[in-house]
Amino acid sequence: MEKITILVYDNRMTKTIIEHAQIPMQSVGPFKLTGDINTDELMVPMATYETPLWPSVARGARTTAHAGGIRVTLIDERMTRSILLQANNASEALYAMRKLETQRSDMQAVISQTSRFAKLINSHFQIIGNLIYLRLEFTTGDASGHNMATQAADNLFPWILANYPSLSYVSISANFCTDKKVSAVNGLLGRGKNVVCETHIPAKLCQRFLKTTPQALVDLHIKKDLIGSIVSGGLRTANAHVANMLLGFYLATGQDAANIVEGSQAINHVEVTPEGALYFSTTLPNLIVGTVGNGKGLDFVQKNLEQLGCTDKNAQPGDNARRLACIAGATALCGELSLLAAQTNPGELMTAHLKLERANRD
Amino acid sequence: MEKITILVYDNRMTKTIIEHAQIPMQSVGPFKLTGDINTDELMVPMATYETPLWPSVARGARTTAHAGGIRVTLIDERMTRSILLQANNASEALYAMRKLETQRSDMQAVISQTSRFAKLINSHFQIIGNLIYLRLEFTTGDASGHNMATQAADNLFPWILANYPSLSYVSISANFCTDKKVSAVNGLLGRGKNVVCETHIPAKLCQRFLKTTPQALVDLHIKKDLIGSIVSGGLRTANAHVANMLLGFYLATGQDAANIVEGSQAINHVEVTPEGALYFSTTLPNLIVGTVGNGKGLDFVQKNLEQLGCTDKNAQPGDNARRLACIAGATALCGELSLLAAQTNPGELMTAHLKLERANRD
Amino acid sequence: MEKITILVYDNRMTKTIIEHAQIPMQSVGPFKLTGDINTDELMVPMATYETPLWPSVARGARTTAHAGGIRVTLIDERMTRSILLQANNASEALYAMRKLETQRSDMQAVISQTSRFAKLINSHFQIIGNLIYLRLEFTTGDASGHNMATQAADNLFPWILANYPSLSYVSISANFCTDKKVSAVNGLLGRGKNVVCETHIPAKLCQRFLKTTPQALVDLHIKKDLIGSIVSGGLRTANAHVANMLLGFYLATGQDAANIVEGSQAINHVEVTPEGALYFSTTLPNLIVGTVGNGKGLDFVQKNLEQLGCTDKNAQPGDNARRLACIAGATALCGELSLLAAQTNPGELMTAHLKLERANRD
Amino acid sequence: MEKITILVYDNRMTKTIIEHAQIPMQSVGPFKLTGDINTDELMVPMATYETPLWPSVARGARTTAHAGGIRVTLIDERMTRSILLQANNASEALYAMRKLETQRSDMQAVISQTSRFAKLINSHFQIIGNLIYLRLEFTTGDASGHNMATQAADNLFPWILANYPSLSYVSISANFCTDKKVSAVNGLLGRGKNVVCETHIPAKLCQRFLKTTPQALVDLHIKKDLIGSIVSGGLRTANAHVANMLLGFYLATGQDAANIVEGSQAINHVEVTPEGALYFSTTLPNLIVGTVGNGKGLDFVQKNLEQLGCTDKNAQPGDNARRLACIAGATALCGELSLLAAQTNPGELMTAHLKLERANRD
Repeated sequence: MEKITILVYDNRMTKTIIEHAQIPMQSVGPFKLTGDINTDELMVPMATYETPLWPSVARGARTTAHAGGIRVTLIDERMTRSILLQANNASEALYAMRKLETQRSDMQAVISQTSRFAKLINSHFQIIGNLIYLRLEFTTGDASGHNMATQAADNLFPWILANYPSLSYVSISANFCTDKKVSAVNGLLGRGKNVVCETHIPAKLCQRFLKTTPQALVDLHIKKDLIGSIVSGGLRTANAHVANMLLGFYLATGQDAANIVEGSQAINHVEVTPEGALYFSTTLPNLIVGTVGNGKGLDFVQKNLEQLGCTDKNAQPGDNARRLACIAGATALCGELSLLAAQTNPGELMTAHLKLERANRD
Repeated sequence: MEKITILVYDNRMTKTIIEHAQIPMQSVGPFKLTGDINTDELMVPMATYETPLWPSVARGARTTAHAGGIRVTLIDERMTRSILLQANNASEALYAMRKLETQRSDMQAVISQTSRFAKLINSHFQIIGNLIYLRLEFTTGDASGHNMATQAADNLFPWILANYPSLSYVSISANFCTDKKVSAVNGLLGRGKNVVCETHIPAKLCQRFLKTTPQALVDLHIKKDLIGSIVSGGLRTANAHVANMLLGFYLATGQDAANIVEGSQAINHVEVTPEGALYFSTTLPNLIVGTVGNGKGLDFVQKNLEQLGCTDKNAQPGDNARRLACIAGATALCGELSLLAAQTNPGELMTAHLKLERANRD
Repeated sequence: MEKITILVYDNRMTKTIIEHAQIPMQSVGPFKLTGDINTDELMVPMATYETPLWPSVARGARTTAHAGGIRVTLIDERMTRSILLQANNASEALYAMRKLETQRSDMQAVISQTSRFAKLINSHFQIIGNLIYLRLEFTTGDASGHNMATQAADNLFPWILANYPSLSYVSISANFCTDKKVSAVNGLLGRGKNVVCETHIPAKLCQRFLKTTPQALVDLHIKKDLIGSIVSGGLRTANAHVANMLLGFYLATGQDAANIVEGSQAINHVEVTPEGALYFSTTLPNLIVGTVGNGKGLDFVQKNLEQLGCTDKNAQPGDNARRLACIAGATALCGELSLLAAQTNPGELMTAHLKLERANRD
Repeated sequence: MEKITILVYDNRMTKTIIEHAQIPMQSVGPFKLTGDINTDELMVPMATYETPLWPSVARGARTTAHAGGIRVTLIDERMTRSILLQANNASEALYAMRKLETQRSDMQAVISQTSRFAKLINSHFQIIGNLIYLRLEFTTGDASGHNMATQAADNLFPWILANYPSLSYVSISANFCTDKKVSAVNGLLGRGKNVVCETHIPAKLCQRFLKTTPQALVDLHIKKDLIGSIVSGGLRTANAHVANMLLGFYLATGQDAANIVEGSQAINHVEVTPEGALYFSTTLPNLIVGTVGNGKGLDFVQKNLEQLGCTDKNAQPGDNARRLACIAGATALCGELSLLAAQTNPGELMTAHLKLERANRD
């Protein structure tokens, strides 16, 4: 394998050689998607060391495509950065926060000095004693927006301190954002793209592709995804292995894959319909993805984004990233559907793993 | 770049071509480690799209090395798989679980039929109505142990059903394991390696390398890591960005990086010592790593594991994996130390990001 | 003791005799409060079986009064009820929720038909698959507002179903309110009164009244309230025993004491000031109290509310309840301060318990 | 009403007068219970300001009695106290904890010096940096055991410090117990009595007593108790209003009602059986109750405990308390069943509340 040499500078400005980790990658599909995105023949790339994931997701894609596809709905999008300030007391903190809420256009003017795309759309605060945790919420175009939000917050901070001399700086990041950490705030107040994926699968196709029945799948979902997660002390999570699909998808598309921490907090809702079919949905409130920014310039990433139709230069700002989020969500649903189906059958999971890993070793 | 072609078979046994995602990778250090591992000149590889991470971790390594190193203590290790059974009622469930606890050697005999390494060391159960969530806990040698634990559970299941005819199969995985999902159970009952990393940094070195004081760092830690995480509705998490370091480390060493979900639930504890120095610790209760198994056969992974001293053929089973966990923990500490120091200084974070990213683009 | 006989009707309309549980009750203080409430000589009644609580809270009151009092700030107030609807799919759900957000005045008109006091001030929704969790947020005057919010939701529901024929009824309560259950939503989106209580205690008074130093108390707070709660898998909680004070206060003032579940999720923030004094704060985001409604008509409750100055007939709607919340918060702070101080000294807690309980038995 | 005067001493030993809060109390039932307790005609007292609770619970009791009763299974019992120690580093902390685990009989000898009943049955520790959170677990006979556990810990502490000179005292309570605070630890490691209550109700009786169908109730349970709790950011909780029943029961039986905080973390599991009946279960992992200790000496409490059959002098130590826990659990189940049934019918909840409260005012 040829060595790719990239020169980087560390913070003492010495040159270093960068190598590359080679993560196995394959495209699976085809996916059929409807709703906020319409496509029939989409092949989705996933990079992972856990190669049995590919046929598992592929089975989900095949099943849902035969059943009419996956309907995807984008509910919300925003990127956040929280800053941490200190007041003399809670009363002064409250006064400042109430006044600040009336100054959104002033704040936007400050932000616009450094970014064309970042728009302040909301803010929330928590006052704990004399501390202020201020969560700023932005739309950030086609970028996932970590840096754009940090930059905006960095610009706002001096402006806030100048306008509210009674407040002082504590930190540019307050863990109330919150980035790549287990929390409830991202699900409840929003961070990244919130996407709902739904599919209806007739009992016959369940049997043919998934070797199971709608009722068996619903029973397992309730006892494992719902009760099992509650028993484990889970927090806003009700799925089997969404983290796996997101990791594979994020690595293949140049995303900051550490965001699978909040991405993993997805919620399945599964029912038998009055007609006896399977209604299967996966709701992913915190998909943090972009089509521009760090990692997106690599050749294979660009190729993958193109393959997914997420490099449309004529699209509105944000359209490409929204499309990418929709596909990420559908990929997660397919992996959920396939694994849960497998687990309704004693022994199937291990047999499949062994067979596939043995095959891959040949 | 040369294409590596690997033939794999999906579950319809058709051949496919695998490509590779090329994740930028660099070794940072040198690290000085003491305690359960002793090394002076360790260079740690990290693969990530977020390249500013490298100099940030490197700064932490440099600082701690000058200060005498990072003391690493391995507290515990185990891999788990929970299975889901159903009884006629809670009373029968309880009777079965109590009896099962007396049959550990019989269970081990069943497990030993398929694995030399898997040892059942403990089990916990939760009875919810007539459902049984049984969490089996194993040591698994140098493997992270996902598959070994699943295989052991797969073998045990028929044995349990044969010995307890009143119980029936619900699922081979009950979400009480729990794998790659946000929970409290992994921290409280253990999953993976539990590692504590500690360092003492004199005030002078804090100033020289981190441009901050012990007191400023402690203040920020309390308000951000502790209170900020609580405010965000965090669950057993008190850190700034442990997920970033673990992602980079896991990708470079062939780990299943989706396990950063639980890995991210790390807890910093930071104090000013009576002598005015900085005591900085990062406790990582759920480091799920191995030196054998999926992903470890790739050339660059083997090279990285060798570089880390984790391929010693003469070591006791598990020694290589334990060493790897210790290094993972120390890497996380260095990233925490460096970022928190940066955030004590208004503007430093963004300036550093911009400078490094600009440099990397040149 | 005289028996009080009240005739009630169960849902088959048969008469029954009601007795009374006699919970020991005492007034403690005097409290000195500043900020959103100003009082010098307030005696606070608490009803509890755990009688050592009285002298403990009294010590906190005495200490803070000598130190200049407790500053109380009311940050927010609202009562919530969530309803549960089902759509054909997430896309229709989203369409309905977005349109509904534009119809707030129509909704208020419906609400106003049955309540003079209930005002719809905000709403939040979560779409999970085809399910809608709609959280309606009201101000409710001097009532804690459970029933007023339920009544408002009950009136709104038929109106919503009539205006959105694609939606169907699932439940009048969706657990997204959430009432008397452990959650993150109440802290993050608000429910009840959000009150911050702060006090500064010079080191000298710390020693005289609390037998401890500011630094010892801060250290304990960090290791117990903050890290200890995180280690326990706590959720938005960082205190020692706020539930105790709220229970005593709620029972004495006719509140629905089951709301101590969310009330217990309070967060202490404690520091040594640059002057070496103790800054001690308790933030209680979910104080659910009222001065009218169920339980308030009992004689001893009225007497207690009067004693607290919370029965002012000339006050603005809501003023009496806000005052009550402020006092509840201050009472909690005093209990926190006193217990934490005791726990800095080995042996003091048990000795005090034994002495007091022995005294009470004499 | 006659005034009961009790002389108490605060910590300055001044006499004070105690009054009593008069909480409305009624006995509801009759309950039919099987399993770990056998009774047919049990009337259960509940004290609460929320008087509509009585007929609601009574409906549940009536329904389940007609259906053959509630089967109660006691899964576990223990009371805990965590202590907080500090070591020089994590390695010394680990060494001490491992050695301590081998010294259980020595520890029991120390405990036995002050208590006949407290038995150390297990311990768990968490090491965070150089801090040790040591959770001691006891059985405590018929007492709920807060004080007994604290006393035992208080005795053990000097013994530990004497035997491990490298450890130092931080606090007698570490919030890892955890008492009256929201956490995952109590559910996962146990605190109080863990009780499962189950009942089967034929569809016909569902219709007759609850005006609903098994399927409607199951649907609501899944969408409200399970998904709704997950959406709200709940932690190990899946019920509608268990806190209400526990509050009423705890006040009537002299319990420390602040323990409803952890008591509220109960989990319902509800299914339609193959025969079309309703299987309804409520699992309450943290029922903290006793028949001796604080509050139990009051006349009405003794009378209530007698009425419940929990004052048997010939019973084995702990039997009375276990019986009490079983009844508490069954009471909670009845309230859950009744409220969930009501919420399947639009409008029923509010109508019932209004009717009952109007009736009670007459």
